[in-house]
Amino acid sequence: MKNNNHLVIMAGGVGSRFWPMSTPERPKQFIDVLGTGRTLLQLTVDRFSGICPISQVWVVTSKNYKDIVLEQLPGIPEENVLLEPCMRNTAPCIAYVAWKIAKRFPDANLVISPSDHIVMNVEEFKRVITKGLEFTAMNPNILTLGMMPSRPETGYGYIKAVCEDDGSNPYVDPLFTLGGTATDALIPEPVESPVEIVKVEAFKEKPNLQTAEQYLQEGGYYWNAGIFIWSVATIQSAFRKYQPELAAQFDAIQPALYEANEQSVIDEKFPECKAISIDYAIMENADNIYVFPADFGWSDLGTWGSLYGHLEHDENDNAVIGQGVRMVESSDCVVHVANDRKMVLQGLKGYIVAEHNGVLMVCRLEDEQRIKSFSESLNK
Amino acid sequence: MKNNNHLVIMAGGVGSRFWPMSTPERPKQFIDVLGTGRTLLQLTVDRFSGICPISQVWVVTSKNYKDIVLEQLPGIPEENVLLEPCMRNTAPCIAYVAWKIAKRFPDANLVISPSDHIVMNVEEFKRVITKGLEFTAMNPNILTLGMMPSRPETGYGYIKAVCEDDGSNPYVDPLFTLGGTATDALIPEPVESPVEIVKVEAFKEKPNLQTAEQYLQEGGYYWNAGIFIWSVATIQSAFRKYQPELAAQFDAIQPALYEANEQSVIDEKFPECKAISIDYAIMENADNIYVFPADFGWSDLGTWGSLYGHLEHDENDNAVIGQGVRMVESSDCVVHVANDRKMVLQGLKGYIVAEHNGVLMVCRLEDEQRIKSFSESLNK
Repeated sequence: MKNNNHLVIMAGGVGSRFWPMSTPERPKQFIDVLGTGRTLLQLTVDRFSGICPISQVWVVTSKNYKDIVLEQLPGIPEENVLLEPCMRNTAPCIAYVAWKIAKRFPDANLVISPSDHIVMNVEEFKRVITKGLEFTAMNPNILTLGMMPSRPETGYGYIKAVCEDDGSNPYVDPLFTLGGTATDALIPEPVESPVEIVKVEAFKEKPNLQTAEQYLQEGGYYWNAGIFIWSVATIQSAFRKYQPELAAQFDAIQPALYEANEQSVIDEKFPECKAISIDYAIMENADNIYVFPADFGWSDLGTWGSLYGHLEHDENDNAVIGQGVRMVESSDCVVHVANDRKMVLQGLKGYIVAEHNGVLMVCRLEDEQRIKSFSESLNK
Repeated sequence: MKNNNHLVIMAGGVGSRFWPMSTPERPKQFIDVLGTGRTLLQLTVDRFSGICPISQVWVVTSKNYKDIVLEQLPGIPEENVLLEPCMRNTAPCIAYVAWKIAKRFPDANLVISPSDHIVMNVEEFKRVITKGLEFTAMNPNILTLGMMPSRPETGYGYIKAVCEDDGSNPYVDPLFTLGGTATDALIPEPVESPVEIVKVEAFKEKPNLQTAEQYLQEGGYYWNAGIFIWSVATIQSAFRKYQPELAAQFDAIQPALYEANEQSVIDEKFPECKAISIDYAIMENADNIYVFPADFGWSDLGTWGSLYGHLEHDENDNAVIGQGVRMVESSDCVVHVANDRKMVLQGLKGYIVAEHNGVLMVCRLEDEQRIKSFSESLNK
């Protein structure tokens, strides 16, 4: 059977909150953040082994990172690495890759994934992705993954699922869960856990703490992980319906795709696209959006604190990446340095110690939101 | 007039308390500790400019450091760099250099100086050294420099000067202070400050705090800086009188000095010398010892804390060597890294941050006495 699964990785971010490990020259997706020997980008691709071949992996990134991507993903066709000449948020980026894939693979079924997230339970991740791809192969719907919230996090957007009045039983797609044929008809029906694919009522922006607590109490709210699944036909339709201007721009670019002049056309035309996120451009408008509640140990790894939570801790609750580091009377620290770096850290409690490319940062973990300003202080 | 002044620098220490800046491969005397562009060894020689020429500078060190010494002191005759095959404390080291100098320069007048101390007021230092050399040129006496104590330091030995009963007026050598001829006769006589050269009553080992406080209250006690001045004839006499065995050993070595086989003879015979400090070997026995109380901003720079006290402080009382270091919300820290090293240190109070040769140490200043154990933890 033909494998129509394609992985689209968005890898254009600069990761300023992870300075100095992450720099504009080599943002965090290109770094072995977890000390596993694989960069976050490589781990992202690794998670799709058995789901889609490397020839069907696509990376959208900045021109600056082309060589890094090709080096880190051996076997990826060079034409699968799409280079944005400037940042225009996620909608133009997704339109570009969708139009390109559609030209050669009109039956393609896509997973859109960030490049810098982590997943602890890869087996469960694969189960969810595989089931999600089955869903979008059979339904002309947009599917998002909704992370089961474990705390009233104010740093993420939330997805609200359609619920019955008693709040316990969301609408589900019975034909899909029953293995039926494609449909977008919905029959409200109580189901046993695990809740699977559910219709979306609304996308919610990052809430304040009180609202986040209310979401958790109420139930039916999931973290928006920025992972989307859809067929290329579905997303093109959505662009034509909700972003006709963007669709027209990429229709005009279309003849150049895979041609010698693709990059020069993109360099000229891409900057003309409006900068808009896929959430604003499509998600908040479309009515055929579903969420797949999932729990596979996900983190967007947005900050040192979130990394700290995902690393192994020693007996003093230090999370240390760096084989040459000795912690003496130190606790609650996260350390990230090269394995050949020798370091003794004594008497530190609750600090980040990170080094990359000849730049060392020591800062209090509680002050990590201000890392960007610390990095700027070096240029003064 | 012939310049008989010779400078003897003892540069064999390993400086373990200054790890990681100081390592066995390159101890602190060979490092630009103060960030001035000159190593402590070079600063030691610099302080004697105008007092003795580079051809009359002698360095006694370990064989491992020969190349470093020759590189850091251009113009020093290679035969002036004496290489100990092993550490035998200060008395054999001083005997070796004394016998060698005596063979060619029987009229030599020597200053013995450590290589890793610092002096803030070089002008006053030169005045004291010059006057001290005049004293020993005219007197067959041993002269030590006594540092005016500014606090009840328990880390130094003390020199007690001979005092009158009222404690205010030490014995002085009137002929010397009057510019008279050589003599070691003493006439008790009240003098006005500044107190100059005074006879020594006793050397005192490192006291406890209570005793140190008593010394300061009593007066007439000075820190033993390990800086000695004497003619080569005087010190040879002292060895013959108080350490006849050592004297005999170097009399036996004497024919080889300046010869092609000097090093091989030293390599064979030096290890046979007993390990004994010059204080025990000579100072505690001789009766012709004088002290020159001096105040030229001296520090033995034994620890990071003492370095901290001698560096310029920023508005938050950080002492920073390293032009690429940015201190953010940090105070009372001492930082010592290479000038091309980039570093942001945030939220640290009272820490040492030091780096050398790929090894970084962060530790609380108050725990600096345990640095040796921190350095050892890296080898576990």
